[in-house]
Amino acid sequence: MSNPFRIAVAGLGTVGAGLIDLLHTNADLLAARAGRPIQVTAVSARDKTKDRGVDLSGVQWAESAEDLAGLENVDAVVELVGGSEGTAYDLVRKSLAAGKHVVTANKALLAHHGYALAVLAEEKGVSLCYEAAVAGGIPVIKAMRDGLAGNEIKAVRGILNGTCNYILTQMRETGRDFKDVLADAQEKGYAEADPSFDIDGVDAGHKICLLASIAYGVKPTFGPIRMSGIRHLQTVDITFAEELGCKIKLLGLAEKHGDKISISVEPCLVPRRSALGAIEDVYNAVTVTGNFVHTPLFTGRGAGAGPTASAVAGDIVDLVRGISVPAFGIPAKDLRDPVFMDPDTATGRYYLRLTVLDKPGVLADVSAILRDQNISIESLVQRGRDPDQPVPLMITTHEGTKHGHILKACALIGNLASSVEEPCVMRIKNL
Amino acid sequence: MSNPFRIAVAGLGTVGAGLIDLLHTNADLLAARAGRPIQVTAVSARDKTKDRGVDLSGVQWAESAEDLAGLENVDAVVELVGGSEGTAYDLVRKSLAAGKHVVTANKALLAHHGYALAVLAEEKGVSLCYEAAVAGGIPVIKAMRDGLAGNEIKAVRGILNGTCNYILTQMRETGRDFKDVLADAQEKGYAEADPSFDIDGVDAGHKICLLASIAYGVKPTFGPIRMSGIRHLQTVDITFAEELGCKIKLLGLAEKHGDKISISVEPCLVPRRSALGAIEDVYNAVTVTGNFVHTPLFTGRGAGAGPTASAVAGDIVDLVRGISVPAFGIPAKDLRDPVFMDPDTATGRYYLRLTVLDKPGVLADVSAILRDQNISIESLVQRGRDPDQPVPLMITTHEGTKHGHILKACALIGNLASSVEEPCVMRIKNL
Repeated sequence: MSNPFRIAVAGLGTVGAGLIDLLHTNADLLAARAGRPIQVTAVSARDKTKDRGVDLSGVQWAESAEDLAGLENVDAVVELVGGSEGTAYDLVRKSLAAGKHVVTANKALLAHHGYALAVLAEEKGVSLCYEAAVAGGIPVIKAMRDGLAGNEIKAVRGILNGTCNYILTQMRETGRDFKDVLADAQEKGYAEADPSFDIDGVDAGHKICLLASIAYGVKPTFGPIRMSGIRHLQTVDITFAEELGCKIKLLGLAEKHGDKISISVEPCLVPRRSALGAIEDVYNAVTVTGNFVHTPLFTGRGAGAGPTASAVAGDIVDLVRGISVPAFGIPAKDLRDPVFMDPDTATGRYYLRLTVLDKPGVLADVSAILRDQNISIESLVQRGRDPDQPVPLMITTHEGTKHGHILKACALIGNLASSVEEPCVMRIKNL
Repeated sequence: MSNPFRIAVAGLGTVGAGLIDLLHTNADLLAARAGRPIQVTAVSARDKTKDRGVDLSGVQWAESAEDLAGLENVDAVVELVGGSEGTAYDLVRKSLAAGKHVVTANKALLAHHGYALAVLAEEKGVSLCYEAAVAGGIPVIKAMRDGLAGNEIKAVRGILNGTCNYILTQMRETGRDFKDVLADAQEKGYAEADPSFDIDGVDAGHKICLLASIAYGVKPTFGPIRMSGIRHLQTVDITFAEELGCKIKLLGLAEKHGDKISISVEPCLVPRRSALGAIEDVYNAVTVTGNFVHTPLFTGRGAGAGPTASAVAGDIVDLVRGISVPAFGIPAKDLRDPVFMDPDTATGRYYLRLTVLDKPGVLADVSAILRDQNISIESLVQRGRDPDQPVPLMITTHEGTKHGHILKACALIGNLASSVEEPCVMRIKNL
């Protein structure tokens, strides 16, 4: 058999060790499919002495991750360090500059520097692969870039953060509140010690940024993406959603509106029986609406050593097979700057949960504010009766409500003396 | 921009016309993604005069489909004629022999001749692409062949025939019987005038044959695939399944058991809330279990002009991009003959529905037969009470029941004087 394809792996955490394991366990299969054996020739990690349960004999240890970029005996560098700056960025940039293919699972890096890195990769005639950066083992990058390449994409919608989906599922199933479930998720290893990237929607934001880039042929542009997370959700929101036949899901949304696009991460109410409504626990899912294919859905485990290693390995097989597709589906030089729709002009159906004092006149004040913003109420429910105490008030609006109007109304309601908490507002998406 | 990539299209039915429409509508996008414009230079169809609602000006009409194989100004031939022999086979063979890439939606052709055609394609250095042959617009061929290439595949399971899934969904939702729903499906265009390929599991058999080939690196081998359809199912089966918390789904199954594989198409009981249990109407779905990725699921519309055209277009974009992967994931010369597991040795949990006369002693006879076959009963329900008349009797067995034993028991029960109909037996799959 021909010469092995030689890879260097930077970062030997859960995913790195999982990849080494996969490459050993499935070595024969991979060689048969790729046409050449795949060999790990070099690695780097902070701790060289740690037992990772994988065989690294004969593998060269680099002093630092960045050193991998300069090695002669390496065809591709796998970056599993993480983070949008620093080591990961330097390693990927130097590797591409040195004419090495790069495989990465780093969504933050690509959301921030994807365009420049894609340009560099094309200049050097090498590939920049990142299947593992979005939705773990689900090959959704390739599905959009290759399998659905015949379509004008109208919308990409996904449950892209397993931590949040787990928390929301647990809140619904157990009735426990956000903090309690988060603590439990941290204990189980489903949430980080500092969970803010997950629960504030930043991680999902990185991912939807990359999906939008492929879908619409635009430069990954993270800055303007509107992100809201799930920190502020209360058990009463979960209950109200259920009464509406819905579940709350943190969605990444990238939608086309004429020549403009909207990209956001936000908790939404989706019908319980819809495709995305059915996705529970740590699972991820992505739906892609194309003008010919309708709306296929891809789902599976969105994280973990095995699924992520599977995605990285798929990219490596592509490289060995000599498959090269521009990172974002079209040549980097052809990527345009996205033109974002003014979010205030979006229309939809909304869920509003207020926490207001239970006393005469409050409803009149709220109704007047909504009327003045031209918002038409579909339903209104007050939960419980507790004179002069805070009670939750749930309002849904009719389809066609302007986003700008609902935000304005929320601000005004929040300023009422009878309003005890920031109003909670979410879209109701009929997917 | 560089020279166009020139394709010939054989067959201008719903899918062919849909493809022409897609190539016109999305021409700029396709050129951007593929790197070159895609041009239809020649077509063939039985009726040249028919208005198909698409613009064919400037396109050469071939006298016969096979003539397309010989045209100079064609880089790839798209075969949308259908059928495993005759025109489709001749066209594909001649096109490959003439050094032209082939894109086809023809599952029957590949299930029967896929190996020989893949060998021929590789000899000639061209590609044989067939994303549209399985699960319509869902890019599951590429997902398995490329995205999941890092995995040893343990099982592929799918709802691969939209007609059957529509019929089963309707039977459950409306309580109507098979014949009635079939007639309705024919009227709606969801079922053919001669529906046997669909309802007897042959179409799903062709598809699971191809998926098994990619999954396990074996020659597509249609002959030994066991297929049973849904013709014999009664409304009482649907009801019994619901009582067990299940739905009946016609599944294509390709599973690995050590060095052997099993491939079948059969109606199964699957938990209502499972991933495949949730797939309704004309939708298709495929789950792929790999040793690292766990079990992603891919779902969407499995047929129709738009989705099928989308899949064909994705293949064309691959060709224009110069992407070439062996048809079944590894070089054709390396494909092995599948070693099939003796189906009788499979074990599982079973559903049995008997139609027996309601009279003393019948249960004793049935129980004795099951005991003699070493089959352990989990539950037994007789529906209704009607002395000396036929009544349905439902039995479920414990996990671990041998397939051979259950078949033997069914034959013996069917021979009882009190047995009015062939027993109906289905696996209960805990997916």
